[in-house]
Parts: sequence; C-alpha cells; structure tokens
Amino acid sequence: MGPKNSTAPVHDRTKAGDSASPAGRLWDSASAYDSSVTSLADFHKWFDQQRTESHYAVERIPLSALSGWHSAPESGDLVHESGGFFSVSGLRVRTDFGRLRQWTQPVIVQPEIGLLGLLVKEFDGIPHFLMQAKMEPGNLNLVQLSPTVQATRSNFTGVHRGRGVSYLEYFIGPRRGTVLADSLQSEQGWWFLHKGNRNMVVETAEEVPLRPGFRWLTLRQLGELLREDHLVNMDSRTVLATLPLGPPGPRSAGGAGGDALRHSLMRSHTPGEASLHSFQEVLTLLTEARSRYRLEQRQVPLREVLDEGRWQRTDSGIARPDGRYFSVVGVDVHARRREVARWSQPLIAPVAGLSGLLVKRVNGVLHVLLHTRVEAGTLRVCEFAPTVQCSPAPHGQDASAHRSPFLEHLLSAPADRVRYDTELSEEGGRFLHAATRYLIVEAGDEVAVTEPPDHCWLTLRQVAALLRHGNYLNVQARTLVACANLALTARN
Amino acid sequence: MGPKNSTAPVHDRTKAGDSASPAGRLWDSASAYDSSVTSLADFHKWFDQQRTESHYAVERIPLSALSGWHSAPESGDLVHESGGFFSVSGLRVRTDFGRLRQWTQPVIVQPEIGLLGLLVKEFDGIPHFLMQAKMEPGNLNLVQLSPTVQATRSNFTGVHRGRGVSYLEYFIGPRRGTVLADSLQSEQGWWFLHKGNRNMVVETAEEVPLRPGFRWLTLRQLGELLREDHLVNMDSRTVLATLPLGPPGPRSAGGAGGDALRHSLMRSHTPGEASLHSFQEVLTLLTEARSRYRLEQRQVPLREVLDEGRWQRTDSGIARPDGRYFSVVGVDVHARRREVARWSQPLIAPVAGLSGLLVKRVNGVLHVLLHTRVEAGTLRVCEFAPTVQCSPAPHGQDASAHRSPFLEHLLSAPADRVRYDTELSEEGGRFLHAATRYLIVEAGDEVAVTEPPDHCWLTLRQVAALLRHGNYLNVQARTLVACANLALTARN
Repeated sequence: MGPKNSTAPVHDRTKAGDSASPAGRLWDSASAYDSSVTSLADFHKWFDQQRTESHYAVERIPLSALSGWHSAPESGDLVHESGGFFSVSGLRVRTDFGRLRQWTQPVIVQPEIGLLGLLVKEFDGIPHFLMQAKMEPGNLNLVQLSPTVQATRSNFTGVHRGRGVSYLEYFIGPRRGTVLADSLQSEQGWWFLHKGNRNMVVETAEEVPLRPGFRWLTLRQLGELLREDHLVNMDSRTVLATLPLGPPGPRSAGGAGGDALRHSLMRSHTPGEASLHSFQEVLTLLTEARSRYRLEQRQVPLREVLDEGRWQRTDSGIARPDGRYFSVVGVDVHARRREVARWSQPLIAPVAGLSGLLVKRVNGVLHVLLHTRVEAGTLRVCEFAPTVQCSPAPHGQDASAHRSPFLEHLLSAPADRVRYDTELSEEGGRFLHAATRYLIVEAGDEVAVTEPPDHCWLTLRQVAALLRHGNYLNVQARTLVACANLALTARN
Repeated sequence: MGPKNSTAPVHDRTKAGDSASPAGRLWDSASAYDSSVTSLADFHKWFDQQRTESHYAVERIPLSALSGWHSAPESGDLVHESGGFFSVSGLRVRTDFGRLRQWTQPVIVQPEIGLLGLLVKEFDGIPHFLMQAKMEPGNLNLVQLSPTVQATRSNFTGVHRGRGVSYLEYFIGPRRGTVLADSLQSEQGWWFLHKGNRNMVVETAEEVPLRPGFRWLTLRQLGELLREDHLVNMDSRTVLATLPLGPPGPRSAGGAGGDALRHSLMRSHTPGEASLHSFQEVLTLLTEARSRYRLEQRQVPLREVLDEGRWQRTDSGIARPDGRYFSVVGVDVHARRREVARWSQPLIAPVAGLSGLLVKRVNGVLHVLLHTRVEAGTLRVCEFAPTVQCSPAPHGQDASAHRSPFLEHLLSAPADRVRYDTELSEEGGRFLHAATRYLIVEAGDEVAVTEPPDHCWLTLRQVAALLRHGNYLNVQARTLVACANLALTARN
C-alpha cells in the first residue's frame, strides 16, 4: 500500500475546476497511464489482496430455504418479508418485434431508483476516479471493481437497517461538488421490468479521506482494467459511459503522436466533425422505432407463469426444462471466518451472452453501429442496443430477437480487426455468474455506411449527447461505449 | 373562403430552408399577424362554418349500451371487440409523494404510440402551419383546431378499417421534408397509464394540396387563437410546445419596438443569456426527485377497483359516490343528417381543473417556475408540471397532490399581472368536456428567485432543450409553454 493510499486525507495539489464542461481534462485522465496516486502495479497487488481476504462464501440453496424470503400466498411472487428489496414476479409480453409474439416469463420488479455514484478529484492536474473493491454474491471472482457508491434506495431508507454507505454524502443532499453527469439509465430489459438507476459523476475539490477498500484511478488505468475478464463491474461501466468527455483538450488531441484509430476516436468526440446523420435524424430513428413496434407489458402473478408450464419450479430453482434463457436460484452468503453479515437472496442465473459493436472510420471519424431493440422489460418500447446482442442466450438462440445480419461478421473477423474482446459480468447483486463476451470489431469497406432497417451509425459525440438523458442506450450498449472510449486504444 | 384556400395546390413562392436549425424564421412567423394565405377574419368565418356544418351529435349512453365494447369476463376491464383502440382497466398505486399513499383507480391503457404531426411550409418567407378543424366526441363545441395529423396507431394498421389519414405521408415512411422536431411526449398521468404520443413537426418545400377542413396559419395567428376558450385543442398545444424556436432572428428580436415582457421572452430564448440554473442543475433536480420519491404502479383488473367500493358502476357510468376526480361514461356519436360513420365509445369525464404558471423577469430574462410532480400513471415517477396544477379536482382537492404554496398567489394576482387566462379542453377523443383553466401570472419581487423544494425556475431555452426529448414536461406544462411562447405577448 503506497503512502498516498492510506486512510488519511490525501492533499490535493490542484484545485478541481468548477465548470460543468470539463474541456478536455477528462481526456488527459484517459491518457494518464502513470499516476502519482496509484500505480497499476500497486493496484493489482492491492486488488488481489482484497479478493484473497474477502471473507465471504456463496452457496446455492433451494428457493424454499431462503431466509426472509417467501412465496406470496396468492401471487406466488418471491418477496422479502420487509416488503423491500425486490421481488421476482411474472411478466406477460405481447409484441410485434421479433419471431416470438407473446410469452410469459419471470421478471425482477424493483420499483425504485438505485444510485451509482462516481467521485472525481484532480491530483497533479489529472482527474482521478474513486473506485471500490466490492463483493457481490453473484460476481465471478466475488470481488469486482465498483464505482464509489453503489446503493439501492433501501440503503438510504433503512430496510437494510444497515451501516452507512461510504461517500454517499457527495451524491445526496446539499452539493459538495460539481455534478458532471446525472441521469437515469436502464438495466437489463430481459430480466428487469422498467428498472432504472441514477448514474452520477460528481467532481470535488475537497480533501477526501481514503477509506479501506477504495483507490483513486485514472481513466487510462480504468481502460487497461476494462481489458481484464470480470474485473470492472457493470455499475462502473454504465456510470463511466455517461462521463461527459467532451472534445479532447490540447494535451490529448495529439497530432502525429497517436495512431489512426485513436485519432478517429478523438475526432468522433469533436464538434464540427462530419457525422453520417444529424442528431435529429438519430432521435427520429429511435422515435420511429418506438412508435412502429408494439410492446404490451403486464406484470402478472408468478403463479400464472408457472401454470403455463414453460417455466417450472423445482428444488434447484425456477427454470425452463429446455435450459434456455435463465433460471431463478437461491444463494446463501456467509462469512468464512469472522462475524459479518449473513444473508440469503434469489438471483437470476442466465446463460452466457454475447454483445458486439461494429465501429468504422468514416472519413477519418469513428462511428459506432447501434440497433434499436425491443426487450421484454424496456421502459419505452426500445432503446439503442449494440450492433449484435445475443441475450440472454448466445448466438442468436434468443427467441425474441432478430438474428443479426452482423453476427457472422463479428465472429469471423480477422484478429487484427478485433479491437476489444473481453468477458465481463453483469451486476452481481442480482445475477449469478452472468458472463457476457463483449466484442468491438472495426469494419472496413465490406460493411456499408448505409444501414439495414433499425440500425444507425453514430459518432461518439452523438452517443454522449444521448447519454446525458435516460433510456436511450441499453446497458450492454453503455458497456461497449465505455470500452470504446477508454479501452479501445488503451494498449496501442 | 379566399382564393388561396381552395383545395387546389397553393404555389410556394419561397423555398423552405433545409436546415434543421430554423435560425429565427419561426419567430418571424410568431410576429406575423397578417398572412397573405389566411387572414384571421377569414379563418373565423371558415371555422364558424366548420362548427355549424358539423354533422355529428354526441349523446350520453350507459356503458352497457356501447356497441362493440364489453366488460371482459374475468377482469371486468372495458375492452373493444377488436382488441384494439384502448381499454379502461384498473391501477393500483403506492407512493410516498403527497398525502394519499395508496389507492386504486380506473385508468386508460393504450400501449401504443399515437402520432401528432404538424406540417410547416413557407409562404412569402413566413412559415405557416397546416391546421385542421376536427370533430372529437368529447370536445366542448365539438369542433376544435387540431394539428395536421392526429392519429392513433390503429389509424395506420387498419383496426379503424378506415379512410386514409390526410397528409400522413409527410410523417411516415420516406422523408418528404425536414424534421424540425420529433419526440415522444406524455399524456395526462391521472387518467392514462404510461401513455405517450409522437410529437412531430415537419417542414416541406413541396407543393401541398389544401384539403377541405384544413387551413395554413402563422404562429402569431395561433397565438391569438390560443386566447379563445376551447378553440386550439390539446394535441395542437403539445406539438406547438415542441417547436424548436431557437434564438430570435434579426427581424423578430426587435429593439425599442417590443415591450419589456416581449423583450424578456426573446432573451429567454437567446443563448448566452444568464439563467438562474445551469442545464445540468435542471436535469439533476428532476433526476433527484425521480429517485427520491417512490411510485409503484400495477395494472389490476377493473373489477378489483370496483370491489374495493370507492368507485361504483351504475347505469350512468363508473364514478365515486363523492363525485371526485372523474367518471367513466359512454357516448354514442352519430350524424345528424347524412350517412357518415357512427360509433360509440367510453370517455373519461373529469371535474374541471386549473393549471397555472408563474413567470418572472430575472435580470431581464423571463423564467418560468416548474414543479416536479408525481402522477398515478407517469412513466418515470415524475415530470416537470406547471407551478400549480389542481388536477383533476380544482383548488387542491386533489388527493395525491401537495397544496401548492403558489395557488393563492395565482388566484389573487392583480389583473395587470395576469398575462394569460383562458379555458382550454383536454383531448376530446378520450375526455368528455375536460375543461382546464390555464393561467399565466407574472410575479414581481414578492416571489423570490430561491425556490421551495421540488420547484425550479427555467428559461424558455432550457425548456426547449428538455422538450427535444420525451417525458420531461407533463402535458399541462407543455400547454402553458406553448401559451407562453405564442400567446403571452400576442396582443401587446
């Protein structure tokens, strides 16, 4: 543990700017591999230690053995005795998108907005981000890297009857910093009904005490860590996607220095650079899809789903006999050694997924190909999804999705076109070992700039303008945007 | 009927700009009282004629006598035999906003996006808007002024088995003009569950044949008409609210010419003019309210609502014995004289409402005071509502609403501070004689610039930036924004 990473306050040498427009400062952080606050080598040593020293063990148990949870007598919904947290209920869907027109499924209902907060502070003129090593029962490797604050509304209101949430004071109540981003973003539409989280980035100039389990990292370092399997968690990725990177500043824009891909990424964030579509055209494409497709959602008792027979409840959970999509299972979480919290809860255990993004330099400006996609629990019919999303089942077995014309292209791309290929986890507080392979492939002339229906090439500046608001990009697309911004050129 | 208002094509003398940024041209339309296409005197003569010649009569009938509608056997929901249109179902709400924490109520469910389209075309260099004299069964005066296209999704897909919708080709399918605005906006949260409409403004340079029942008007003329009771319908108001007015052009900015209020309105639309809050602060205020308040909505069988006893079904409809909020009634619509469509349908008949907006010049820049407000059927917890909204019951009897600290201020304002006071109708296709008194009052020093919780002073430029996206302003707030932009200074 380096001297600056003690729990004592770290002195700030540079004052954080008060402006809401970071004017390239964040790009400086995206270029800063070396940090005087935390080196990557030190980070790895510390993080391995956090994983090793985690005192938790997670065990699969029958749903009927969950402590504090029961099936509500009338509906059969899986609910917590407090009435809080979340419930596993049923969802009846009718749609004219995709092959399957009508179905029922289990779904997580949690009609409250959680908070994902990321604290920023300049050290030596470079913005650093306060990250947390956090255990979640569904995580592969148990401990992953989460944002500064990751809290359900229950965390604030006492259903957890719990310990305070570290650094919450920077995000709730009277402002103690400058809000750089603040929007409600969606979660997985196949597993949640209308769920949203508040994604906040707050910059402070105050002295911030460094508590155990936290480290300050630059965006460049986070870009490197995004290339490691199952390390940067979903909550970190979505809040990083909402960062208002803005146009690169003089230090980052580079000239001869960067390679062509990095240069096209910078131009993709620069105002005045030519985009294939106007922003109004982008908005219209989504609005049109939302009014063209029909999505009828109705929460129904879980019993109704089970009565139809395609989903069955056994000792090991709620699942389909054909093994598709996901199952609902129970876990017991307990400490291996010392006296800490013990609890049990249901989790969604999905089959592995694949999400892929095609990117392309168009006149030297990087564009990303997004797809308007209807999902069972989406709040407003559809959002922009990655170019290809096989979710929850891999390789287009997804009953409700179109088979993407770009799937083969992504999977058969030559190695020198694969710009990013890492397996990441979805949120470990709700999903058990939910692994998604995230791919970014750079397309050449073989992929046209004219899109098939429901697809659109956007610049990253246009994507950032959408992400200032909620419910434009789904959570898989937001992961890929964070990877494109921070990890695409990290090793080049 | 003037010679230019025949059904023959009107020749366009000026080419419509292709730019999505109208750069003040729309403000020229907002100054153009006289139009060579339609004078207001001619409009009134024509519109009176449309009302007189309307061949429809609307009669209240029992719900059980509705043709094509019945109560679904299990749920008791009021549904159409086609499975289309809409249904009257039940809604169970739990919230911590307002005095009432839990209730059930009837609600309209229509899980599809309707289209409100407004066609724009320049004549003599001035943008004109194609408006329609349209009968809706719930309208006071039966015929009101609607946008060019006002259509449910059923209109396109054949549930109406019907006649084509005039001018639909400008809004659907291959582009025949420039899209100036295109967003999904909400409808009344007390009567609809999650309902949204697509609000579109399209400018064309083509020759447009003028069909019977349509007239081209300037924004200034629409501003005048907005001052008449029950003339400009709700659909026109909401789509006019989304107009990207932008900063005023050289012709409109005026200097010495305009009065101080008009001048402050123009400055409120001008980039660089000081606003009380940054745009990020405005976004954060709403995001914070959305995550602070809890809104749990569950569609339930209408039978469940009736079983609880607070709503009762009689021959005259579904209503509360205490007469509060609204009732669900049936109407039969038929022609007085000739062979035209005849149909019957349910309508919501609400008690009268009041929506009021406080505006204030802050350093010469007009600001409007909005209030984040939870409504039963809102898609995402809350939206910005007017300063005061007593809806559906007048004068704060609304069970779920806070009594606004500004209600007395609005109702007791001296006459010279009342800038707008007109009774307008809510959508006549779903609501029967739903009259709302819309008020705009200019506040002086007696109202502070520091707001009580959940309130925010915004410039009209900030409001316009929000309205580029969906679900930021509720429908009453959008009406008042249209009135502020177009009617506030129309007679000065």
